[in-house]
Amino acid sequence: MTTVPPLPDSAPDAPVPLPAFADVEAAAARIAGVTLETPLLNQPLADAKLGLRLWIKAESLQRGGAFKLRGAWNRLAQLTPKQARAGVVAFSSGNHAQGVALAAQRLGMPAAIVMPADAPAPKIAATRAYGAEIIFYDRASEDREAIARHHAARRGAVLVPSYDDPDIIAGQGTAALELFAQGAAAGVRFDRLLVPAGGGGLVAGCALVRDARSPDTQIHAVEPASHDDHRRSLEAGAILANSGSPPSLCDALLSPAPGTLTFAINRDRLAGGLVIDDAQALAAMRFAATFYGLVLEPGGAAALAVVLADRERFAGETVAVIASGGNVDPALLARALGG
Amino acid sequence: MTTVPPLPDSAPDAPVPLPAFADVEAAAARIAGVTLETPLLNQPLADAKLGLRLWIKAESLQRGGAFKLRGAWNRLAQLTPKQARAGVVAFSSGNHAQGVALAAQRLGMPAAIVMPADAPAPKIAATRAYGAEIIFYDRASEDREAIARHHAARRGAVLVPSYDDPDIIAGQGTAALELFAQGAAAGVRFDRLLVPAGGGGLVAGCALVRDARSPDTQIHAVEPASHDDHRRSLEAGAILANSGSPPSLCDALLSPAPGTLTFAINRDRLAGGLVIDDAQALAAMRFAATFYGLVLEPGGAAALAVVLADRERFAGETVAVIASGGNVDPALLARALGG
Repeated sequence: MTTVPPLPDSAPDAPVPLPAFADVEAAAARIAGVTLETPLLNQPLADAKLGLRLWIKAESLQRGGAFKLRGAWNRLAQLTPKQARAGVVAFSSGNHAQGVALAAQRLGMPAAIVMPADAPAPKIAATRAYGAEIIFYDRASEDREAIARHHAARRGAVLVPSYDDPDIIAGQGTAALELFAQGAAAGVRFDRLLVPAGGGGLVAGCALVRDARSPDTQIHAVEPASHDDHRRSLEAGAILANSGSPPSLCDALLSPAPGTLTFAINRDRLAGGLVIDDAQALAAMRFAATFYGLVLEPGGAAALAVVLADRERFAGETVAVIASGGNVDPALLARALGG
Repeated sequence: MTTVPPLPDSAPDAPVPLPAFADVEAAAARIAGVTLETPLLNQPLADAKLGLRLWIKAESLQRGGAFKLRGAWNRLAQLTPKQARAGVVAFSSGNHAQGVALAAQRLGMPAAIVMPADAPAPKIAATRAYGAEIIFYDRASEDREAIARHHAARRGAVLVPSYDDPDIIAGQGTAALELFAQGAAAGVRFDRLLVPAGGGGLVAGCALVRDARSPDTQIHAVEPASHDDHRRSLEAGAILANSGSPPSLCDALLSPAPGTLTFAINRDRLAGGLVIDDAQALAAMRFAATFYGLVLEPGGAAALAVVLADRERFAGETVAVIASGGNVDPALLARALGG
């Protein structure tokens, strides 16, 4: 098992092991019956319009409305009884918040989530409804990670990172385990797999599965053009951060930089990063609703948006995209529908 | 195998056999790889809000945006080569139209569909995009069945009924075959199954499967209050028609009366009919988009609408509903979201 330098909050002499494919398989056994098997969707009408064969793995239909329960459950279910009593703390704009809150509720442990004050209202309401305590911070002036660390230390609680954690990455990878199994059952081989990326946990987990299940499939991270840290980091071969946080509708994809662990996995496995803008995300939300019957949030529609915006690039290919989340304000969905 | 009096267009001495559970199993083998396995969805947040355990079988995600491809494929795939060359004719407000058009396109046979001139624009556009010829009629003044018969006779084509046909009923039943298998895999037993009903083909097919797979599950037809022909027919023990066609947003559920075959199946198997109005259908569309990430059309949301409108009735139960279709005008969905 390869290792990377320790995370800042790890003991300095404990290198963090990278997850491997076997960890994804173990995660799948752990989450069985907790997460739903989300469908792999195909619509002939859309295929004809696009000139390619498109399959959508609809993680927007997952419990909690995003793939996040996979990783959160895989992490929380492995805590010791003592850790479980003290509970967990997480920071998230909303989807990881819901995943952690939902997992904690089912496992009977307390959860506190640090959320930006401007997070989408439905994400805040849902996180609260799962029984989590919510701690707001100001995205522009405060450091959410420092706030989360502070609260975790005060409670003796475990801080659950949203992506840079071996169990989180392995859990998210179970989405791809399902995807490739469903593809195989349908007799489909994928030329490409496009995965929305914030911190890169989902795409890293998927890349581990791709290696084992479909090594010829090219895998790409998709992100907002204003937050193209994965694209630039993959090109440079080193972690590069975003400069500040310019506005983007894709609230789920606004992490400051690729993670240490996720980038260690993604660096040698991804075929590059692809980017979209807000208008393309809204167009993809409309397309998903019209042709696939799916409600997607902007970040959840990012991979589909790349295919719509750049369809000539994929002409004749068989492409899988992960629709990573559907937690969107109804007013924003209505705006997308009217576009 | 029990029989019922022949349909008007059958040879007078040929009683039409009712489909049995084995026919649903045969249909499932026939449609494998053509239809998608649609997901059985559950959201803890909605369950907590409703005070029951709700599972949604999302046939809105099926190819063609509704369950109709199941029956259409099962019927068309059994035509003789000679019949296939002459092709098929169907009449439908849109979902059966798309199912037949899509099946015919894949099987390489010509299809003509008689559609009301006021059918939803996306359903007309999609049916045309699948390569079918469209023949419009006026819902208020013309007899769609007579028009369809005329065109079928002129072409020597097979008329494909939207519900009163053993192969159509058996095909639609495959949705319930998946539903009960998915429920069993999740360790779930359903107290009730609620199924939207126009002519009653879907609920009849589901009732055959219920008998074989989950005999303790109560099964209900759900329809618009303005078109409560199943409810009244089930109460009377005889087929009663709707009076005229009062307005309803549920364009997929406006058949004139229960079918001869479908009612022969449903009469002794259904626990009764339940009804909803337009406002309840719109509220269910909003709920489905917000809590399940699903785009539903009004008729497709009917079974969910019953649960929302009458949740005390189902308190503490485990309820399955079929979300039968998602082919809705974006403007109407936006209206529902704003509600």
